[in-house]
Amino acid sequence: MFDARKESERIIAFIRDYFETNHLKGAVLGISGGKDSAVVSGLFSKALGPENVVGLTLPCHSNSQDASDARLVADAFGFELLNIDLTSTFDSFTKEIEKLGDFTEEERKNSDINLKPRLRMASVYYMAALLSAIKGGTYIVAGTGNRSEGYVGYFTKGGDSIYDIGTITNLTVSEVIQIGEVIGVPEKVLYKAPSDGLSGMTDEDKMGVTYTGIEKVIRNELTEGEEYERIQKLHKNSRHKFHVPTYEPEN
Amino acid sequence: MFDARKESERIIAFIRDYFETNHLKGAVLGISGGKDSAVVSGLFSKALGPENVVGLTLPCHSNSQDASDARLVADAFGFELLNIDLTSTFDSFTKEIEKLGDFTEEERKNSDINLKPRLRMASVYYMAALLSAIKGGTYIVAGTGNRSEGYVGYFTKGGDSIYDIGTITNLTVSEVIQIGEVIGVPEKVLYKAPSDGLSGMTDEDKMGVTYTGIEKVIRNELTEGEEYERIQKLHKNSRHKFHVPTYEPEN
Repeated sequence: MFDARKESERIIAFIRDYFETNHLKGAVLGISGGKDSAVVSGLFSKALGPENVVGLTLPCHSNSQDASDARLVADAFGFELLNIDLTSTFDSFTKEIEKLGDFTEEERKNSDINLKPRLRMASVYYMAALLSAIKGGTYIVAGTGNRSEGYVGYFTKGGDSIYDIGTITNLTVSEVIQIGEVIGVPEKVLYKAPSDGLSGMTDEDKMGVTYTGIEKVIRNELTEGEEYERIQKLHKNSRHKFHVPTYEPEN
Repeated sequence: MFDARKESERIIAFIRDYFETNHLKGAVLGISGGKDSAVVSGLFSKALGPENVVGLTLPCHSNSQDASDARLVADAFGFELLNIDLTSTFDSFTKEIEKLGDFTEEERKNSDINLKPRLRMASVYYMAALLSAIKGGTYIVAGTGNRSEGYVGYFTKGGDSIYDIGTITNLTVSEVIQIGEVIGVPEKVLYKAPSDGLSGMTDEDKMGVTYTGIEKVIRNELTEGEEYERIQKLHKNSRHKFHVPTYEPEN
């Protein structure tokens, strides 16, 4: 059985150990207003002290509900929350794209969706380097992806897939929620339906499968049927995000 | 001995095989005006036909010499070259950063340097998805990093480290040049000193070591002395770019 209290303590020790061994100072991460970044920011605040954690709200044509939920999280754990609005950066970029041709919204849809997490990645790394320069100690980027999303490839390559340390990477959604209960993530954030805060749809709507289903497949408790097939298809079709083919010379 | 003619043929076969097996249509890559992207674009043009290769010039407060060298490469191999100027995107982003405080150029230096390759990564992926939508077939991103740069960690995590297929990833600089000679990369591009086109310094100036030295270390032909120590230090200090620590739960 998953022992959330014990695992929380072990994760906190894992963070402390890595920071001490590598002489690191602090952690930066995007705070979306969802449970994953809330749990991770809480774990780092407890491990390093909230004064060594910096959260970023990174709106990009986003709704303001996310920002107020991010504030709830920062207040609960006591770390600093900075805002970098990516809307004008996004618009500057797409304006350059428009110079290349008349593309419909439908044609640009996939490109636009994935541009946002990539700009967010660039932002957290920008701030990690900037904080390292001004605070006199190395800041690194904490990842916020979980095992359930990873299993179906529900993340953006070059976006939320890029980080320097992973704490919930190998935990399923229900395990992340249990950790959140132990460390005191605000209930409003912990139990709301996960969404990207961009499309108005929940993650489950968009994936076409449930997190409960994914978790059952991971645990070999769901091994056939329509949802099983859909989950395995997502899993299989996203393998290219994990393995990049590279040519190996003969000599 | 490295047989550049035979290796070129094998790389071209490797690309064709991967595209056929995965039902892919085309490749997108940034064309910097340097040898690496020139060699890779040439290999893909020969493997897929130049009509299935799209090169991007991605200036960002850059000098125009790079753009004219990129044009030389595109003309040599016959693929389409599109321009996305990232200057206004970069400026929009840094304007948001300025809202957070008064940072000096020195404090922002590392952040600014690495933002550019990250915006370039976001751009090639944006175009790969857009071309997939409008051309009716999947475009993927070709990587342009080589083994010598990889050995000393001379790349940006979340920037040029992100791609979908690597062809020269495991080839040293001198091997890449030999491939370039076989496939007909314009000499002006193939033999110019590698630089990022941003700082006015060559890569060797910035790394503080030579590509010849790196290659000797890779081949175990240089195993002591000052340059060896400097190279091994770069190698060791960049391992975090290759291995991300992740917490593993007990149960």
